Amino acid sequence: MPHAQPRSVLTLGEDLPARYAAVRGLSQALAAPLSDADATIQSMEDASPAKWHLAHTTWFWETFLLRDHAEGYALYDENWPFVFNSYYETEGERIARFSRGMLSRPTLSDIVEWRSHVDAAMDGLLGREELAPLIELGLSHEQQHQELLLTDIKHALFQNPLGVKMWDVSAAKAHSSPNDWHSHPGGIARIGHQTDGFAFDNEGPAHRVLLEPFALSSRLVTNGEWDEFIADGGYDTATLWLSDGWGWVRKNAIRAPLYWRDDEQFTHAGWQARDPDAPVTHISYFEADAFASWAGHRLPTEFEWEAIARGQEGELPAHDPQGGNQLDDATPPLPRGGAELFGDCWQFTRSGYLPYPRFRPVEGAVGEYNGKFMSGQFVLKGASCATARGHSRASYRNFFYPHQRWQFTGVRLAKDI
Amino acid sequence: MPHAQPRSVLTLGEDLPARYAAVRGLSQALAAPLSDADATIQSMEDASPAKWHLAHTTWFWETFLLRDHAEGYALYDENWPFVFNSYYETEGERIARFSRGMLSRPTLSDIVEWRSHVDAAMDGLLGREELAPLIELGLSHEQQHQELLLTDIKHALFQNPLGVKMWDVSAAKAHSSPNDWHSHPGGIARIGHQTDGFAFDNEGPAHRVLLEPFALSSRLVTNGEWDEFIADGGYDTATLWLSDGWGWVRKNAIRAPLYWRDDEQFTHAGWQARDPDAPVTHISYFEADAFASWAGHRLPTEFEWEAIARGQEGELPAHDPQGGNQLDDATPPLPRGGAELFGDCWQFTRSGYLPYPRFRPVEGAVGEYNGKFMSGQFVLKGASCATARGHSRASYRNFFYPHQRWQFTGVRLAKDI
Amino acid sequence: MPHAQPRSVLTLGEDLPARYAAVRGLSQALAAPLSDADATIQSMEDASPAKWHLAHTTWFWETFLLRDHAEGYALYDENWPFVFNSYYETEGERIARFSRGMLSRPTLSDIVEWRSHVDAAMDGLLGREELAPLIELGLSHEQQHQELLLTDIKHALFQNPLGVKMWDVSAAKAHSSPNDWHSHPGGIARIGHQTDGFAFDNEGPAHRVLLEPFALSSRLVTNGEWDEFIADGGYDTATLWLSDGWGWVRKNAIRAPLYWRDDEQFTHAGWQARDPDAPVTHISYFEADAFASWAGHRLPTEFEWEAIARGQEGELPAHDPQGGNQLDDATPPLPRGGAELFGDCWQFTRSGYLPYPRFRPVEGAVGEYNGKFMSGQFVLKGASCATARGHSRASYRNFFYPHQRWQFTGVRLAKDI
Amino acid sequence: MPHAQPRSVLTLGEDLPARYAAVRGLSQALAAPLSDADATIQSMEDASPAKWHLAHTTWFWETFLLRDHAEGYALYDENWPFVFNSYYETEGERIARFSRGMLSRPTLSDIVEWRSHVDAAMDGLLGREELAPLIELGLSHEQQHQELLLTDIKHALFQNPLGVKMWDVSAAKAHSSPNDWHSHPGGIARIGHQTDGFAFDNEGPAHRVLLEPFALSSRLVTNGEWDEFIADGGYDTATLWLSDGWGWVRKNAIRAPLYWRDDEQFTHAGWQARDPDAPVTHISYFEADAFASWAGHRLPTEFEWEAIARGQEGELPAHDPQGGNQLDDATPPLPRGGAELFGDCWQFTRSGYLPYPRFRPVEGAVGEYNGKFMSGQFVLKGASCATARGHSRASYRNFFYPHQRWQFTGVRLAKDI
Repeated sequence: MPHAQPRSVLTLGEDLPARYAAVRGLSQALAAPLSDADATIQSMEDASPAKWHLAHTTWFWETFLLRDHAEGYALYDENWPFVFNSYYETEGERIARFSRGMLSRPTLSDIVEWRSHVDAAMDGLLGREELAPLIELGLSHEQQHQELLLTDIKHALFQNPLGVKMWDVSAAKAHSSPNDWHSHPGGIARIGHQTDGFAFDNEGPAHRVLLEPFALSSRLVTNGEWDEFIADGGYDTATLWLSDGWGWVRKNAIRAPLYWRDDEQFTHAGWQARDPDAPVTHISYFEADAFASWAGHRLPTEFEWEAIARGQEGELPAHDPQGGNQLDDATPPLPRGGAELFGDCWQFTRSGYLPYPRFRPVEGAVGEYNGKFMSGQFVLKGASCATARGHSRASYRNFFYPHQRWQFTGVRLAKDI
Repeated sequence: MPHAQPRSVLTLGEDLPARYAAVRGLSQALAAPLSDADATIQSMEDASPAKWHLAHTTWFWETFLLRDHAEGYALYDENWPFVFNSYYETEGERIARFSRGMLSRPTLSDIVEWRSHVDAAMDGLLGREELAPLIELGLSHEQQHQELLLTDIKHALFQNPLGVKMWDVSAAKAHSSPNDWHSHPGGIARIGHQTDGFAFDNEGPAHRVLLEPFALSSRLVTNGEWDEFIADGGYDTATLWLSDGWGWVRKNAIRAPLYWRDDEQFTHAGWQARDPDAPVTHISYFEADAFASWAGHRLPTEFEWEAIARGQEGELPAHDPQGGNQLDDATPPLPRGGAELFGDCWQFTRSGYLPYPRFRPVEGAVGEYNGKFMSGQFVLKGASCATARGHSRASYRNFFYPHQRWQFTGVRLAKDI
Repeated sequence: MPHAQPRSVLTLGEDLPARYAAVRGLSQALAAPLSDADATIQSMEDASPAKWHLAHTTWFWETFLLRDHAEGYALYDENWPFVFNSYYETEGERIARFSRGMLSRPTLSDIVEWRSHVDAAMDGLLGREELAPLIELGLSHEQQHQELLLTDIKHALFQNPLGVKMWDVSAAKAHSSPNDWHSHPGGIARIGHQTDGFAFDNEGPAHRVLLEPFALSSRLVTNGEWDEFIADGGYDTATLWLSDGWGWVRKNAIRAPLYWRDDEQFTHAGWQARDPDAPVTHISYFEADAFASWAGHRLPTEFEWEAIARGQEGELPAHDPQGGNQLDDATPPLPRGGAELFGDCWQFTRSGYLPYPRFRPVEGAVGEYNGKFMSGQFVLKGASCATARGHSRASYRNFFYPHQRWQFTGVRLAKDI
Repeated sequence: MPHAQPRSVLTLGEDLPARYAAVRGLSQALAAPLSDADATIQSMEDASPAKWHLAHTTWFWETFLLRDHAEGYALYDENWPFVFNSYYETEGERIARFSRGMLSRPTLSDIVEWRSHVDAAMDGLLGREELAPLIELGLSHEQQHQELLLTDIKHALFQNPLGVKMWDVSAAKAHSSPNDWHSHPGGIARIGHQTDGFAFDNEGPAHRVLLEPFALSSRLVTNGEWDEFIADGGYDTATLWLSDGWGWVRKNAIRAPLYWRDDEQFTHAGWQARDPDAPVTHISYFEADAFASWAGHRLPTEFEWEAIARGQEGELPAHDPQGGNQLDDATPPLPRGGAELFGDCWQFTRSGYLPYPRFRPVEGAVGEYNGKFMSGQFVLKGASCATARGHSRASYRNFFYPHQRWQFTGVRLAKDI
């Protein structure tokens, strides 16, 4: 998951205090159903404890805003940076990633107190115009960790054989929509971040890409379609798979998407009946690619996806990025639609996560940096039901390794025309 | 760690209710300084969460006493046996050992409530004479888990780089006592459990063993002596080590006992100055054996140790097994003496953990069973500062793999004479 | 390493017999200095025994030409396909890759006999025009395995602490050439295979790509420059490295290119003094990328490299692909130049190995297939000193994982202008 | 496998030259059917290449006899000790064990030449009385490696899916003999090496052991009986197994002894029909112990086995240790009997491989030493069809880890009476 670089001086001063309060409040609201123990456990190296997300985002404010810009500010606890720094090498030593699950102390309420302390101290900085880009970055950073908090805790609760849950709500039935194809005539498309708004460094520089004619599916692949893939021997047919994917399937005895069990799937609201019309989620790139082969189509490139998302004229399409099921309050994230580009699940592209032309990471720790993850991963476009509302933009580049599937990942097919 | 088999009908009926209350109460008192999160984390596959120990011991009472002998008793939660059974194959499927650290639910207070519920139900069974052996077994079982709870939580808290603790008390200074040798003329010694009292199945049958003349050190090896071993290149000298031990040292870059850091060691009361006169603890069999080679001596056999512990006439020796620092209330376990056979730390013997002549495991789940661990491990004798008072007897056989060292393990030397 | 698909009916009939004889002969000439035992050992899963390469290439002719097109041809040994098939899933079960080093039987001379038998049988097919594309493919396939044979046996002999060699020749001193930059104004470049000549399926379809202005270094990075990188702490500076690369460096204690030792490097002619003016080889993508960061530049994309290789007008550049040090007879491969695009070493690009627009793998086993390796790998351009002469073309796409370095891999820098 | 220490000055001077020639000759005769490549491959870390055994035994003569005692002797190749030393730490650095399979050079004939050179030089030493014990040790050492050469090459050839063999002979049909029990009344038995003859250091000192009454089966468990164990679900019944054994069975999907396939087993003569009346071989301690539990009996201790082998009066029993099928010339080792204590297969005891009372390893490299393997292994008694004739004695202690099974290991049951 990327970290942000401000692209321009944003004139967002006026509503920053309100937005700061909203974002910080949402983080805590998401963790509200969790006990201290829930918030402490770590289910795998890829994931972090909920408590750690609440602390790490706070560390960000304390380190890059308060320590550097609030005169006389003293660290709340000088030992905490060691445990709540994530991967900023220039910010010094840090705890091994797989030891995060050993942090029973500080407690969840210690962290919540720290949050209040930092929020109070931040009050004095929210009006300083020169800090607005950095604050903007802090907000985006915290919103990213909100999504990770949700996907990580889902994975942790899933380990519990007692079938626990953190919310009671269950999903509405999805509407089945017929598949259709958005055609694109090809030609030169303008790609990457192009406005004065906020974006991560890896979304730029904006540049032109030459496209061949293609079409993108109007909706996501559904659970029901995935059932057909399974019934047709999808997981047993070597020739459908990338070589590494086939190795992964065999070694891990993969037979279905993550979180599937009989006709149920595990959600933040516990085990629920699986809706055949809802978009399939929690699949790996390997599975997405094999499914596309099986279906006789392919995955789109990140450029094709973005071109459709922008519309023929470079405008955003009819799809309303605000209209999805994205995270806007503390309710369980559940994909329900499938027709929207944003808001159900992240969509794998066949594009490697690599630098755009003339990309240069910014100097210093804040700019450390999306660039260093640019090997071995694939770009995902869109936004999921666990993505903060307001994080949807055509230029956004999410990225994961081809075997990872604990995020809300799904498939939108493409084809040559 | 062994599980128990009643050897005879014990006439302990009178004080069983009081002893039941004391043992059950001590388990909870030990866990009292722990938060739900502290009690949830699992630091390695060898260890279990504190919460799990509290639950597993309760599962034992519910399964083997209440379910089988209390008419009409209904399981508190029918899903819990799956997660709180440990290794009783005949009691059905159970959670993978390394997943115990994912049990944020049930919470610590859920478990405490379960304990109360079970204790109340047990009231009706404590007076039934025919159940006394099984109850005796349950008490010993729970006392063993008290020791494991303490060594496991110590290991878990040790992982936290913030240096946390669960108690505030620190150790009194140890008295340095000069080394002396208890000689034994050799001959036929009677080994194994020989009284009407309680014992685990692996302590019997009693039998005779032929000994050569030998001497056993009057005290344990100290931290200060271990410092000399290190200073003399003990960890760098291949010829001092067993072949597997040398491989272990090299692969894991072992340079000192577990929990050592500069001149400190980690304890339940956090990082403390290391007392050179206190017995060394938390060493592996490999280290114990290498130290003995370096010192020009050897480790005793379990038979030699037991012969000395029984005295020349088969009596218990001057060493008072009740006089050590053993666990009798909820205070931090810290070895302080060194002259006692019981109460400071478990003492490695060079005897493999193997069956005594005519040993047969008992039938059924309760008897599952010390016998199945009889490969690859070594016998330890004595008792540690974390052992329940009353668990000290000459015939007790503790056992661990030669690389393990998270228990309170130490060294008492022997030599041929 | 790719497998080939004929793109068009080639009119190569006339000289096919001569070329067949030359290619087949070269394979055996390369293996001539090897004993049966040399040809049997396998040093890692990535590599194969020399004997296996000689057999696998023969299997290809027997399976796809003789079995399918030579009437009445009977397999030389019906059990051999199981052991000498490589990864063609549609051709049935095959031996686990890491067990190839257990094939002490058949012997090297058994394989050589089989080769003669197959060559004799092939005589009857070399004149059949409709088979020319398939024969062309077989030749390219065998030439690729010639390069692998050389890099694999180098790795195997390197394991021997006695410092063995397979040839006696040592390298001529390289000529130091000053660095210069080939500029490119950007714009639309035509990429991919564009002629009637042979190409692998992954080199097409030809298509257009939009480039930004850039410059490509006129020569390869040298051993001497790499020494400076090391002296400047290159392997100790986290911020120079991709995140995965830094993990790889730390885990494997990487301090220098593969095959370096003091001021020597291991070659097919044994340990030799390292020439500071010769191109650095046997480095991973991670190292190439870190070096480029340290040098203040970057790696080129595969498209930039190809655009320069084709020249401004789509022509081949002054660099003569035939003029390098490439493999043309059985002499030890040693990079010596550095100014040529082809013939010293493969050059890492920052382009992921991914399908070109409208790429579709061909049906059937022969087309199994470059496509299935399209995840997690990077494209390399050029050709090395171990590449068969005649395999140099601007569209060629070699590919390896970012940690692999037993091929003759090197670095040519690029920069934005 | 142990290394030897001479116990006394042997008066074997007269026939030493003849015995030296016979032993050295047998080593080469055993390797005669092997190609250089056969002799080079290494199938697992536990095993060594045949070539390595031929070289390592020669290294022993050159190092401990010629270098130390033949004036003016110069090492044949001063780099070879590094690669042909096995585990003698005091003799300096040595090649990693798992890299032995990379030694395609020196070739098999290089080694054979070295052997001749050393044999010629040894001529001058064979008559020196003071060297007799060391020469005796060298002979025993070489004989042990003859057995390992045979079991290691069997394992290596087994990896080849083409079903190769090194000899053509197949086994005679075994005679089915009824099971009977040798009873022993218990009491004090004298254990360990007690004569002037040669023995390894771990066979002493001789000492007394107290035994309970027991009985030992008159014959080995057969393939047919093992078939019944399998048919009765032996490999699926957790309660029959040691805990570590059950983990090993599950992790490795063990379903039968090593080398079994349908109703065949792999031998030095390739795949052969399995004789139900022949002793079962190639089973692990875990399997032996589970089988004994299933049969309602147990494994003997090493002391029980030895007491029976010595007979009631301390004499050797009717079983003729020279009468078995042991290795005496270069024929394929195949167990055929089952009634003999020596000569069919090694018999697992339930005794840990631990030091006898007053055991002290001898000083120096030659005495490096059986003692350092005294953790985690079990003692095996008897001798197998691959053991050199003359290596059979009641005090011999072979030892392996409980999961290992590439030796000719079998089961002789015991019971309490």
